[in-house]
Amino acid sequence: MSNKRFSEVYWRNVLEPSYQNWLRLFKTASFQVHRAHLLMLFRQGIISKDTAGSINKALNKLERTFEFPAVLPNGVEDLYFILEQALGEEVGQENAAWLHTARSRNDMDTTIFRMVLKNEFRNLIQKLTAVCSSMELKAQHSEGLLTVLYTHGQPANPSTFAHYVMAMAQELADTAGYCLDALDDINKSTMGAAAITGSGFPIDRVMVAQLLGFSAYAVNTYQAISTGHWLERPAQAVQLLMVDISRCIADILHKASCEVGLVVFPDDLVQVSSIMPQKRNPVILEHVRIQASSIIDTCSAMLQHFRNVPFQDVNENADAPIAQFLDTLRKSVALLDLFEEAILKMEPDTERAREISRQFGVTTTELADDMVRRTGVGFRVAHELCSIFVSSGSSFDVLRNEFYKKTGKMLPYGDDELRRILEPETFIRVRSVPGGPARDGMKENYSELEKKVMALQKSVAESLERESAGIKSTMDGLSKI
Amino acid sequence: MSNKRFSEVYWRNVLEPSYQNWLRLFKTASFQVHRAHLLMLFRQGIISKDTAGSINKALNKLERTFEFPAVLPNGVEDLYFILEQALGEEVGQENAAWLHTARSRNDMDTTIFRMVLKNEFRNLIQKLTAVCSSMELKAQHSEGLLTVLYTHGQPANPSTFAHYVMAMAQELADTAGYCLDALDDINKSTMGAAAITGSGFPIDRVMVAQLLGFSAYAVNTYQAISTGHWLERPAQAVQLLMVDISRCIADILHKASCEVGLVVFPDDLVQVSSIMPQKRNPVILEHVRIQASSIIDTCSAMLQHFRNVPFQDVNENADAPIAQFLDTLRKSVALLDLFEEAILKMEPDTERAREISRQFGVTTTELADDMVRRTGVGFRVAHELCSIFVSSGSSFDVLRNEFYKKTGKMLPYGDDELRRILEPETFIRVRSVPGGPARDGMKENYSELEKKVMALQKSVAESLERESAGIKSTMDGLSKI
Amino acid sequence: MSNKRFSEVYWRNVLEPSYQNWLRLFKTASFQVHRAHLLMLFRQGIISKDTAGSINKALNKLERTFEFPAVLPNGVEDLYFILEQALGEEVGQENAAWLHTARSRNDMDTTIFRMVLKNEFRNLIQKLTAVCSSMELKAQHSEGLLTVLYTHGQPANPSTFAHYVMAMAQELADTAGYCLDALDDINKSTMGAAAITGSGFPIDRVMVAQLLGFSAYAVNTYQAISTGHWLERPAQAVQLLMVDISRCIADILHKASCEVGLVVFPDDLVQVSSIMPQKRNPVILEHVRIQASSIIDTCSAMLQHFRNVPFQDVNENADAPIAQFLDTLRKSVALLDLFEEAILKMEPDTERAREISRQFGVTTTELADDMVRRTGVGFRVAHELCSIFVSSGSSFDVLRNEFYKKTGKMLPYGDDELRRILEPETFIRVRSVPGGPARDGMKENYSELEKKVMALQKSVAESLERESAGIKSTMDGLSKI
Amino acid sequence: MSNKRFSEVYWRNVLEPSYQNWLRLFKTASFQVHRAHLLMLFRQGIISKDTAGSINKALNKLERTFEFPAVLPNGVEDLYFILEQALGEEVGQENAAWLHTARSRNDMDTTIFRMVLKNEFRNLIQKLTAVCSSMELKAQHSEGLLTVLYTHGQPANPSTFAHYVMAMAQELADTAGYCLDALDDINKSTMGAAAITGSGFPIDRVMVAQLLGFSAYAVNTYQAISTGHWLERPAQAVQLLMVDISRCIADILHKASCEVGLVVFPDDLVQVSSIMPQKRNPVILEHVRIQASSIIDTCSAMLQHFRNVPFQDVNENADAPIAQFLDTLRKSVALLDLFEEAILKMEPDTERAREISRQFGVTTTELADDMVRRTGVGFRVAHELCSIFVSSGSSFDVLRNEFYKKTGKMLPYGDDELRRILEPETFIRVRSVPGGPARDGMKENYSELEKKVMALQKSVAESLERESAGIKSTMDGLSKI
Repeated sequence: MSNKRFSEVYWRNVLEPSYQNWLRLFKTASFQVHRAHLLMLFRQGIISKDTAGSINKALNKLERTFEFPAVLPNGVEDLYFILEQALGEEVGQENAAWLHTARSRNDMDTTIFRMVLKNEFRNLIQKLTAVCSSMELKAQHSEGLLTVLYTHGQPANPSTFAHYVMAMAQELADTAGYCLDALDDINKSTMGAAAITGSGFPIDRVMVAQLLGFSAYAVNTYQAISTGHWLERPAQAVQLLMVDISRCIADILHKASCEVGLVVFPDDLVQVSSIMPQKRNPVILEHVRIQASSIIDTCSAMLQHFRNVPFQDVNENADAPIAQFLDTLRKSVALLDLFEEAILKMEPDTERAREISRQFGVTTTELADDMVRRTGVGFRVAHELCSIFVSSGSSFDVLRNEFYKKTGKMLPYGDDELRRILEPETFIRVRSVPGGPARDGMKENYSELEKKVMALQKSVAESLERESAGIKSTMDGLSKI
Repeated sequence: MSNKRFSEVYWRNVLEPSYQNWLRLFKTASFQVHRAHLLMLFRQGIISKDTAGSINKALNKLERTFEFPAVLPNGVEDLYFILEQALGEEVGQENAAWLHTARSRNDMDTTIFRMVLKNEFRNLIQKLTAVCSSMELKAQHSEGLLTVLYTHGQPANPSTFAHYVMAMAQELADTAGYCLDALDDINKSTMGAAAITGSGFPIDRVMVAQLLGFSAYAVNTYQAISTGHWLERPAQAVQLLMVDISRCIADILHKASCEVGLVVFPDDLVQVSSIMPQKRNPVILEHVRIQASSIIDTCSAMLQHFRNVPFQDVNENADAPIAQFLDTLRKSVALLDLFEEAILKMEPDTERAREISRQFGVTTTELADDMVRRTGVGFRVAHELCSIFVSSGSSFDVLRNEFYKKTGKMLPYGDDELRRILEPETFIRVRSVPGGPARDGMKENYSELEKKVMALQKSVAESLERESAGIKSTMDGLSKI
Repeated sequence: MSNKRFSEVYWRNVLEPSYQNWLRLFKTASFQVHRAHLLMLFRQGIISKDTAGSINKALNKLERTFEFPAVLPNGVEDLYFILEQALGEEVGQENAAWLHTARSRNDMDTTIFRMVLKNEFRNLIQKLTAVCSSMELKAQHSEGLLTVLYTHGQPANPSTFAHYVMAMAQELADTAGYCLDALDDINKSTMGAAAITGSGFPIDRVMVAQLLGFSAYAVNTYQAISTGHWLERPAQAVQLLMVDISRCIADILHKASCEVGLVVFPDDLVQVSSIMPQKRNPVILEHVRIQASSIIDTCSAMLQHFRNVPFQDVNENADAPIAQFLDTLRKSVALLDLFEEAILKMEPDTERAREISRQFGVTTTELADDMVRRTGVGFRVAHELCSIFVSSGSSFDVLRNEFYKKTGKMLPYGDDELRRILEPETFIRVRSVPGGPARDGMKENYSELEKKVMALQKSVAESLERESAGIKSTMDGLSKI
Repeated sequence: MSNKRFSEVYWRNVLEPSYQNWLRLFKTASFQVHRAHLLMLFRQGIISKDTAGSINKALNKLERTFEFPAVLPNGVEDLYFILEQALGEEVGQENAAWLHTARSRNDMDTTIFRMVLKNEFRNLIQKLTAVCSSMELKAQHSEGLLTVLYTHGQPANPSTFAHYVMAMAQELADTAGYCLDALDDINKSTMGAAAITGSGFPIDRVMVAQLLGFSAYAVNTYQAISTGHWLERPAQAVQLLMVDISRCIADILHKASCEVGLVVFPDDLVQVSSIMPQKRNPVILEHVRIQASSIIDTCSAMLQHFRNVPFQDVNENADAPIAQFLDTLRKSVALLDLFEEAILKMEPDTERAREISRQFGVTTTELADDMVRRTGVGFRVAHELCSIFVSSGSSFDVLRNEFYKKTGKMLPYGDDELRRILEPETFIRVRSVPGGPARDGMKENYSELEKKVMALQKSVAESLERESAGIKSTMDGLSKI
């Protein structure tokens, strides 16, 4: 530890903010790393029982009682040196120094960062999984409730609110899966990489990884310290999540606009104008959009930081960017709260859906399909007949006359039958292909989502379990020294 | 098909360029989709044997002989309608129309796009995998050749050129794995989603997916048409790849700079100045950097396109952005060629590495470690002694005196022993932790990379195999109608 | 010129594409630079009359007759060396070499790039200015036509179509002004900076700048070669333009959606569905959005290229990125064509505007204001009364009763008067503050736009004039040698 | 004001954070807007002397004594309504309401935001201008101190440290000018635009703008509320500034690396390794790079927020993004502190510069130029001779022999003369073109920078003056009611 004073400007803008990040975010994990490394050193015979025992006791004591200075004293580089100093005062500097055998601040730091990030990122995955499940429940409660779905901003097909909500839920569940992939990139211990080339001591990298609850260790010692993948990949997954959400919001905003009116929001999410009672601004949607937008660019930063930055140990994967990213993850969870609130409280206006279906003739496709299936006319003729029918203002007489002219046969549908065919419910009921809005089609949607949700929950649980087991092993091991 | 004329400006800037994209990129895949859909319709009893047979013959004939107009006639919307018209002229409009039963341009288009994108993206994965393998070979041929590795721009540890090259190869192999993940997002048939709600006909979505060589189908019919994940995820993977490459290049640029001189390039990659023979500009590195940079932002666009765009069927996942992305993928493969050329032709200057090691005392860490291991002094004392040793201009006498002062014991190393300990080769040899530069450490690096490369090759082969099998089944099935 | 062969991969992916860029884009400007530099060298007495004269003749001949190879011969670095070689064959290598006195490829290249970029960027400014003028004309033809304007997606105030179109035109005119600012950053000659430190010859930098039609020269010779501002600033201006356009399109898309229906598009911009005659998809808007989106990111690239790239002469400001940017500028002009087409052909549906005004009570604000102005009640009371009035289903009786209850006075408006006050036209007519929709308010809008358009036209004209004058001076000067 | 309760989630994630932003950042400016509007209403005869007087007194009292709740009560939308309520309690609700005549929260908010942003952005411009001036001073103190400048990462020309520092200063001063342009975009009052269409009251928009210290008002009332230019343009300018800084840092990092060693940093900016005394890590540079990188993306967000967001009043230009941007501006000022610290404390190592010059023959260009000027040989021959000279290991004999062979004449330089020509100082001294490193060239650099700095200082002073004058006029005017 150097004791020279740093430039005030440097101290104020770099060292002290960094120290605050460590105090707030990384202190706890650093104790865990000390312990796991200590136990491994002892088991590998690198340090003696006595040294290991006394360091262990001192760590326990320090974790309980040591008061870190509120502000970094100028002359000390970082929290690490403060703790090393304190440990030295407990067990003697020379004994304390043994703890730093076969490691470096490089591998310690990046391992600590990964531990904290893993935890926060897993929280996001849990929240996102829960939102997907809530959406499924919402959909199941809306089974059969009519809505209209759009293509290119125009009403295209009647469908169910459940089908619509599930489409969004399935989209988000896919993205939750991407998050899970990215969790794997965080989930590697770098301990043992030391500075960048590993150590000459007979350490056990696998043991440390297990004690810390990682599922693997980063093999190449130089890559372990230099890579930014464990930041870039989670950031990309969250970025995609936020684009997903921006798309859902853009679609709901349109459906919620007063002229469309396919979905409505309760009073407690609406900023009502005191003078225009019809005006019901679901401003929550706009705020979700803005918060998502902000996160998109903060995530982009996590990747862009590394652009043209040497593939070396660099501070781009150190505390400042990571603290910003942890903050982004917490904001993402808050945003998911807001999004969930909006989704769960919005309700379909089925009467309005029926009205739009009628007004824009969105079910005539089904009349054409039905004619193809039941009267044997071809697709092209059926569509022409329906087009004439719609242009006529939906006159059954016109339809019948034209059918006769084209085919020489009578159209074999009575008025009731025609009305039934043209009902949105008919349109939906026959669409029973897997993934479609009919009851049979929806089964596939539910089961696909549930499979994904279960996989997500299982992975998260295993990851948590692995960590608890690691902590337990470490404590047990140390207690037996 | 409407026959009205479109605005000239619209035709020139939208319809005609889109038609050219289809002619150039998507025509072939569209025939495959016609055939797979046709076979399924026939097998499901939706269209008759006669109709199916005559459509099949006509498709074969058209694919061989039909000459698409060089320029889109104003009045026709797109290539699809041109083909439908031609098919109608072969088999009669009504028969031709049967082919469009239970599908829509929506599901057809997005399936076609995925087929073409899958192919191009797989090419990139193959190239990237090959680059990783070349790098491993390069590393294996450089085993034991000395280099110096840096942290924060400063020489930190001696290592081997092989260790360094492998670190980059393993980093890229991880990213190749991310590409493979993203390939899964492309690898879903959307056929059967029709416009957005599926169809009332008894179609078989799984069968069409198999005939087209997809590994799955996109379940929710609305999501299938609306999602952009199959563009966003590959784009993110390529974006990360390019950031990786920018980092490798930034690091190599530093090592190749004339003052550092740790790597050298052959004449055929160097633009020599006619007046300064010492000046050897490996401008290739700068060009790799620029090309990577350009791809980073084109990939970013594939995600940003969807920002605040409704979760609906939109043209953001249609031909214009996709044509741009396909072009980006081809450029990425070319860039990998250039990168590979640079990597494979660069050679380490081991003498320079030795010189830097000596000049910046990068091996004294090992002297300290050795004292810890062999003389029993603690880590802190050992480091202090080494610090004094380095400050003294590496005087063995000073070291011995100080050791005695501190410990009351004689330093048990002769001059030769000290020299040996301080040799970079010693530093490297003891660093045999898994993933480190010693022979034993490198084994883990090679085996990790090989495992990844094999997994990549296997997945790509399976994907290709699935497609051949699909085409074969389709042709066989159709020939038996 | 070195004659060694370059690596095939390098030649194919770097040198040859670069040569093609030069052939296609930069050849003409390079002749201009040769001539201006030649004339200056002669006038400053750096080269002799004879040498200058023969080089001038040779340049004229080569520009007319020299056939550049279609493909770059491997062994030659670039187009510059091909021309130097050809010049040498005309006037002898030694005479030819005099032309390269006191300059370097560095200053030549960046000057040439600026000349070509200036031209293309000025085209964009001209097009954008023309679009603003067209929009003003469109607005003037729509004076008094009713529309409804929105806040947060909800109908807020009635206004005129002219007011709306002018708001967009004024927004774009501001951005045209930003483009003009950025044109200044391109408009600097770098000649005389030589490699990076200028020259020891008594050159005249101002003279060359004038002969080439630049408005200034880049002073610091190192900055002149290293800066990327002349690429970054234009790119930022275009990026902002595209965000502006994306916002206008998002707003128009909403107004054009079939449920809102405030604007309509003619048949030749609408892709009509063959089966749903009501469905009128103004897909042109979506395509403008996508093209704008794509340009946003290509522009972003022009800035991002320089991220963490040393402040030195780098290839980031050389032909490959610039060719891409020139292409982007041409695409931007095409997109402005498309945008203009959409804007000029869209028409307001005033009946629908009236209906929305009535249905959502958007004019009641004016009733409240009128009460404040004419009856002396306060703002708060007036608003409460209006709120009750709207809730009552706009019952005049209720309004009168409540007014009496609150104030003890009779409301001094008859039914006709109330109806008049509630008419959208009344609402608009009184809004005569500068910049508002009433005739008097609009005057300010028109005059502000016209002032901006005139300033834009004047600057562009001056820039063009400066270039013609420069070329003329150069040719005159050379002809007199 | 509605008194209904909002959803807890909405309150917690939107309303309450927004209220905190207002309390912290916008409260003061909102009082100024109340006062200026009040004075205008009174002068235009819209409200009575009595009402105006009592509101004025109440505002004074409230500003001094009113305690805003620490947390937003659920049921109140925002700070505005809390103040309106408090004002009502002072002067009666009806009198209080008069203050809201002819305005809306829309125009008030965006005017308030612009006031606060203007202030913070001006601070940044002041800091940046000061940094440019400091750099000029640094340069002037380094006049004549040798350094080497690079192109494409290779040593290219000797120059002075002053020339180098000035190149960076001039680059930043250009960007300060861009910031000034962007300040104009903020500097427009939107008062009088009311909701979006202005008001029917006879307000005076110019007067309010002047009272608030704006240099103009935003003319089109709809554009005034909808535009985001006043956020986007400043963000773009800051983004460019940060890219500039990232480039300077990348260049300095290379010059500071231990193998190059052209610049050195004092101990208080260097994190020294306890074991490697030669290792002097100027980590401050890396931290500047990271902080700049982070700001680049936050600025990008300010533009990207608006992508595909309707050209309407939206919350993208409301408190949440603005608070984030204000924070970014403060971080930018802190970063400029850090950057300035690094620049001012770095010193050139002129001995190392001389060594590099010699080793890489960077002055031979000047020997060739000198031969051209003094012996009459052509440029090409001179360069060939120099090339042979350098290859020979700088043998004067070889040079003389070759000169004789080529020209049949004796080289007219003695050894001392040759040595003098080859000295870096000679190279620099002759480079006296405007903007070059010689004393005469530097004059242009200094005067260009000083002109820019003075223009910046003048504009900032005028802006501050305009604001003081506005506040004074408002207070004077109100005191006379």
